[in-house]
Amino acid sequence: MTAHAAALRAPQQDRSRATRRRLLEAAVECLAEVGWNGSTVAVVAERAGVTRGAAQHHFPTREDLFTAAVEYVADERLAAVRASAEQLPPAGSGRTEAVVSMIVRLYTGPLFRAGLHLWVAAATEEALRERIVALENHVGRESHRAAVEFLGADESVPGVRETVQATMDMARGLGLANLLTDDGPRRAGIVRQWAGLLETALAGGRPSC
Amino acid sequence: MTAHAAALRAPQQDRSRATRRRLLEAAVECLAEVGWNGSTVAVVAERAGVTRGAAQHHFPTREDLFTAAVEYVADERLAAVRASAEQLPPAGSGRTEAVVSMIVRLYTGPLFRAGLHLWVAAATEEALRERIVALENHVGRESHRAAVEFLGADESVPGVRETVQATMDMARGLGLANLLTDDGPRRAGIVRQWAGLLETALAGGRPSC
Repeated sequence: MTAHAAALRAPQQDRSRATRRRLLEAAVECLAEVGWNGSTVAVVAERAGVTRGAAQHHFPTREDLFTAAVEYVADERLAAVRASAEQLPPAGSGRTEAVVSMIVRLYTGPLFRAGLHLWVAAATEEALRERIVALENHVGRESHRAAVEFLGADESVPGVRETVQATMDMARGLGLANLLTDDGPRRAGIVRQWAGLLETALAGGRPSC
Repeated sequence: MTAHAAALRAPQQDRSRATRRRLLEAAVECLAEVGWNGSTVAVVAERAGVTRGAAQHHFPTREDLFTAAVEYVADERLAAVRASAEQLPPAGSGRTEAVVSMIVRLYTGPLFRAGLHLWVAAATEEALRERIVALENHVGRESHRAAVEFLGADESVPGVRETVQATMDMARGLGLANLLTDDGPRRAGIVRQWAGLLETALAGGRPSC
């Protein structure tokens, strides 16, 4: 490539990346609002202000677009959580509750809602299933790793790994409970109580009162 | 009504009840297998071996049929759980783990799967939403009540109510994690660990090591 061609190419790549990002963000918003049935490539392209042809250039199939969208937004969200982690209070002064709140927030926003529509669609759509299983593994692993790190949990202690997993499962259950109604007030009490139990459990590995 | 008419009427009522039950059970199976989109009254009627007219006589709308189905099967399932509760081991010899396993089983079978399809559909279908919120409240309340009873939990102690709620939320999250892949082995470890933490928590209300 000549220097001139390279100079022309860079802004084009930037534009292409920006288009891709707009499509991915629009896809997650769309899934969260209207569910899998209403989420077509055309609807997302329109929301993103992109032609349908351009959308299909980036994502040849509907499954490509939505799987990539949930993965992209999940990774962005996790990166944002990691970036804000230094604002967490130090251990022993409400840190555990702050971390549990942070995890639960990941599962109660529009990203979880979008993911939920995709997971449930994948239960009956073969074309989605394999990708969604891989996506779930990836996101689950990264979230678990972040939780272990922020909680300062030592997974070499028997039971600690399962305690952290139970926390993620509880957060997922709270996300589902928030789907149709605002479950916020009930959830706040559960987060507080869980944080107390978790702090005790992590201090001792297995409960040993 | 004459004695003769009453005698004719009783078997007819039995038949009508049996038809209704077959429709409700077929509706839950259908939802669990093919999701909300594929679940029409016609498909359920055929599976139940009932004419479409008879199905519509019992349930005028699709929403009537599926909401009633999940409610009916949930109540049946809870009644079966209550009936088998006397086989639980006594307190202190694995009872807590047996109860947690029992709760988690309620959230990982075909009934939960059917409910999940209905809840997610209700997020984008106005005609379903109000009924599903009412159904969720009813089933949630009854399951919570059963859990408190079987665990011997004293909800007058601060924090106990939230600990039991967290257990139900964790079970719901485990149900969701089991949607696309068999999560059984991971789940078994979490149930065991959580039962240990729960036993300690319920013995002391708030953790107080």
